[in-house]
Amino acid sequence: MKTFILLFQCRDQKGIVAKLADFIFKAGGNIINADQYSTDPAGGYFFIRVEFLINAPSGKAALEKGLSVIAKSLQAKFSLYDKEKPLRMGICVSSPGHCLAEILYLWRERELNVDTPLVISNFEGHREFARQYKVPFYFIPATKNSRREGELLKIVSRDTDFLVLARYMLVLSKKFLNAYGKDIINIHHGFLPSFKGSNPYGQALNQGVKVIGATSHFVAEKLDTGPIITQEVEYVSHKDALKDLVRKGKNLEKRALVEAIRAYIDYRVIKHNNKTIVF
Amino acid sequence: MKTFILLFQCRDQKGIVAKLADFIFKAGGNIINADQYSTDPAGGYFFIRVEFLINAPSGKAALEKGLSVIAKSLQAKFSLYDKEKPLRMGICVSSPGHCLAEILYLWRERELNVDTPLVISNFEGHREFARQYKVPFYFIPATKNSRREGELLKIVSRDTDFLVLARYMLVLSKKFLNAYGKDIINIHHGFLPSFKGSNPYGQALNQGVKVIGATSHFVAEKLDTGPIITQEVEYVSHKDALKDLVRKGKNLEKRALVEAIRAYIDYRVIKHNNKTIVF
Amino acid sequence: MKTFILLFQCRDQKGIVAKLADFIFKAGGNIINADQYSTDPAGGYFFIRVEFLINAPSGKAALEKGLSVIAKSLQAKFSLYDKEKPLRMGICVSSPGHCLAEILYLWRERELNVDTPLVISNFEGHREFARQYKVPFYFIPATKNSRREGELLKIVSRDTDFLVLARYMLVLSKKFLNAYGKDIINIHHGFLPSFKGSNPYGQALNQGVKVIGATSHFVAEKLDTGPIITQEVEYVSHKDALKDLVRKGKNLEKRALVEAIRAYIDYRVIKHNNKTIVF
Amino acid sequence: MKTFILLFQCRDQKGIVAKLADFIFKAGGNIINADQYSTDPAGGYFFIRVEFLINAPSGKAALEKGLSVIAKSLQAKFSLYDKEKPLRMGICVSSPGHCLAEILYLWRERELNVDTPLVISNFEGHREFARQYKVPFYFIPATKNSRREGELLKIVSRDTDFLVLARYMLVLSKKFLNAYGKDIINIHHGFLPSFKGSNPYGQALNQGVKVIGATSHFVAEKLDTGPIITQEVEYVSHKDALKDLVRKGKNLEKRALVEAIRAYIDYRVIKHNNKTIVF
Repeated sequence: MKTFILLFQCRDQKGIVAKLADFIFKAGGNIINADQYSTDPAGGYFFIRVEFLINAPSGKAALEKGLSVIAKSLQAKFSLYDKEKPLRMGICVSSPGHCLAEILYLWRERELNVDTPLVISNFEGHREFARQYKVPFYFIPATKNSRREGELLKIVSRDTDFLVLARYMLVLSKKFLNAYGKDIINIHHGFLPSFKGSNPYGQALNQGVKVIGATSHFVAEKLDTGPIITQEVEYVSHKDALKDLVRKGKNLEKRALVEAIRAYIDYRVIKHNNKTIVF
Repeated sequence: MKTFILLFQCRDQKGIVAKLADFIFKAGGNIINADQYSTDPAGGYFFIRVEFLINAPSGKAALEKGLSVIAKSLQAKFSLYDKEKPLRMGICVSSPGHCLAEILYLWRERELNVDTPLVISNFEGHREFARQYKVPFYFIPATKNSRREGELLKIVSRDTDFLVLARYMLVLSKKFLNAYGKDIINIHHGFLPSFKGSNPYGQALNQGVKVIGATSHFVAEKLDTGPIITQEVEYVSHKDALKDLVRKGKNLEKRALVEAIRAYIDYRVIKHNNKTIVF
Repeated sequence: MKTFILLFQCRDQKGIVAKLADFIFKAGGNIINADQYSTDPAGGYFFIRVEFLINAPSGKAALEKGLSVIAKSLQAKFSLYDKEKPLRMGICVSSPGHCLAEILYLWRERELNVDTPLVISNFEGHREFARQYKVPFYFIPATKNSRREGELLKIVSRDTDFLVLARYMLVLSKKFLNAYGKDIINIHHGFLPSFKGSNPYGQALNQGVKVIGATSHFVAEKLDTGPIITQEVEYVSHKDALKDLVRKGKNLEKRALVEAIRAYIDYRVIKHNNKTIVF
Repeated sequence: MKTFILLFQCRDQKGIVAKLADFIFKAGGNIINADQYSTDPAGGYFFIRVEFLINAPSGKAALEKGLSVIAKSLQAKFSLYDKEKPLRMGICVSSPGHCLAEILYLWRERELNVDTPLVISNFEGHREFARQYKVPFYFIPATKNSRREGELLKIVSRDTDFLVLARYMLVLSKKFLNAYGKDIINIHHGFLPSFKGSNPYGQALNQGVKVIGATSHFVAEKLDTGPIITQEVEYVSHKDALKDLVRKGKNLEKRALVEAIRAYIDYRVIKHNNKTIVF
């Protein structure tokens, strides 16, 4: 028995659920979970995530073939994932190590179901940390003026299914994004769309806000604008100096990023226009 | 075109979704929303809420007939609701009027889709308030020693589909619960299962808790033990005296109770054993 | 015995607390509460709020005279308030009435200690509501093109100590702000500094944020930029349509505005540069 | 220049602040922060925490001598702490390592200002982890039936100023508590006073609560009853199985425990009766 996850999307129309459920039933599957969303029942766009348990001797390819027929009839797009096959995650990180530490700890405790992650950093200080967790570490001394994206690309294009920027301080170029071509999840230490760019906590302090936030989002070409996956917030007061905002913010960043990764690797995130559906 | 809501539950088994979706599709309906939950995919209990839009000239009864066939084959229970037909709500309230005020205001603003609610109180001071909102008001001078449940029952058994205890200070007897036979939603001004019974904020103060809560739940025979629908919480500190806890608590009570009512009248709440599924 | 509240601010220096505490002690007072804040102990600005109980037969003026001597020696500013003397609040409100309803209800329940508030609206529909609460109501049919600020000013300059814009849709001119000269508290239905101006929930929806907020702030000349007093936030998801954001947002607005008013009338708010200290 | 923290408590009476502020002023100190609380201004108990910067060539002892005179006149208790001198923390931990990992990481990042902590565990698996952080590790194979408190006492009585039970599964005996005689901070993975004892998440699941919590508190003789320092809460739903509650709970535990430790080592926590004042 295997568990598969189906993501399926098309224009809203009658009978989508019936066709998919019927297909899974006839293939001998049992739907464990199903979540659906329609932007507008009267002519909007429809999304469904179905998790089903199945004894599929003829395998994933056979299921995909059957689903293709339905998809074609509905002009739909779909993806089918084997739940037990973990994704390969690459972590890019600069000097601030709190997100890295959280991710590696949870991974080792089997609370983040990804394949052995690899760590790429322009801060050599993380080498020892990665060694302790027995994960590959690549030091690329990239700077603002010499981003060395070629080296980065070489590593991640082959060995990762998605990238996480766990406080990576360099902006990735359009060229890199296109060449890599897979999803990249960033943590921004501010409450987007406020406080884009650098020093968001300083910006928050100057504005005298009473709530700070952190935002995890997909990377898009324009800085800090991609579809938001998760946001976490916390109350602050006039007593909180910059160092307090930073300290509280680190907690928010860890939580927002980990929840985004968790949703992503469970195939619960769908990008649509500049927004996300997170089932 | 009408919108119906189907609640359906049975032992988990293959093909439930397929059968229901197929039935709705063939009846010409379009599923707008579907939420499902299984206590355990391997032999647990399965619940589904389906909202569908349909042109049903032969009406609700015809749909129910068709669903009965499926239900029989799956040994399932189901209910079908017409979304546009609002439920009739009775509000029982003692002296504290903050929940009453919130509910009536939201109802008048068309943010709580119920039929004209009726108000029953053992506190005559609410009469004028009810009059201002043009809702029926019944004064029953019930006390601990003379609960006058017969009078209450006479009013609510005929004119309400469910009851809300919006800070009603008298315990309803088992006899009353059985005679009424419909759902009763209570707001408890404490974080259940802590702080049952009277003066929960005083109890919280004595314990020195740093978080207080309010709990909305279905009424069961045993005081403050029925299935929990919603809980709301807020941080407090040593500075908060009893009056502050009460003040903050009133906000929690309003929010917890209104959210519970909203979920209930949207048919998003299913009772199962001593717990709730809130879609 | 009377309770006074002293707000005192000056450059940080040694002995401020000693001088004030000594003065109160010698006057026969007992400090009930004291909160202080310094922007930077090494040469910053110092703020203190002291609440003290005193038998002051010679009255407030005598206390102020004594405090003036200390203030002069420290080059400080101060204000002294009689806690029992409630402020007079004017409420400006357009069509959305949820904040108005919350404020009037809390005032009547003696949970907002202000003098009988007066209501000014460009929406005549609120007249009946104000009448039910037995508070003065002034209908000024102001519009974007005819703001009728003269009529507004005439009412509020004489009969109010501060104004609350409880979802007032017109921008007040610089001329009005100068002529009124007292504090004005606004509720903005968005999470400032994001989403300034109109339709903030629509803006939030388009950005796909996962948290929405409401902000209460002092009115400054530039729209939605004055010092922030309170912010309230709530999580949202892709399922929340605009009407859901609006509904959830109304709750946030009520809470943020009421907490801001409560802090203000307790003399717990100090404006400093473009920020607030809220004790 | 040194920073001292004074905790001072006595029956509420006139002139306390004046006397203390005058003393610090005359000693050449500058008050940076002051927080006070009175259980009841009319005859209650008074608490103050004062942080002051001082050039004290004659040192802490001289200050303490002066404070003793004031304390005697007010029948007060006080403690004076040198802010720069970090406390020595002992960590007792059983198999669940998430709190340990968080604490050691924050300590190494200089975000928890304690002296090199020592780790005592009945789970040898943590040895390597402690080694990586270069902190002393003591393996004591204690079990329910053989608690080996003597060995524990020997280590901690000499080398620690306070203990943290970072998910230590054994109950410490009254004898041990008396012999150790210093403060012990526990993290309970439930929302006290609900869900005392073992398996609190299982208890929460059975009750069908919609909010879970974690509680950090001082250890008292009776299990899970000592004064609460911090509580953290998070919303849950019917979808959350036990493993989800445990996962979410771990986050709450880390946050509640770290905040409690942070407050404790900043000398912001005062125990009073069975409650805490946390400035």
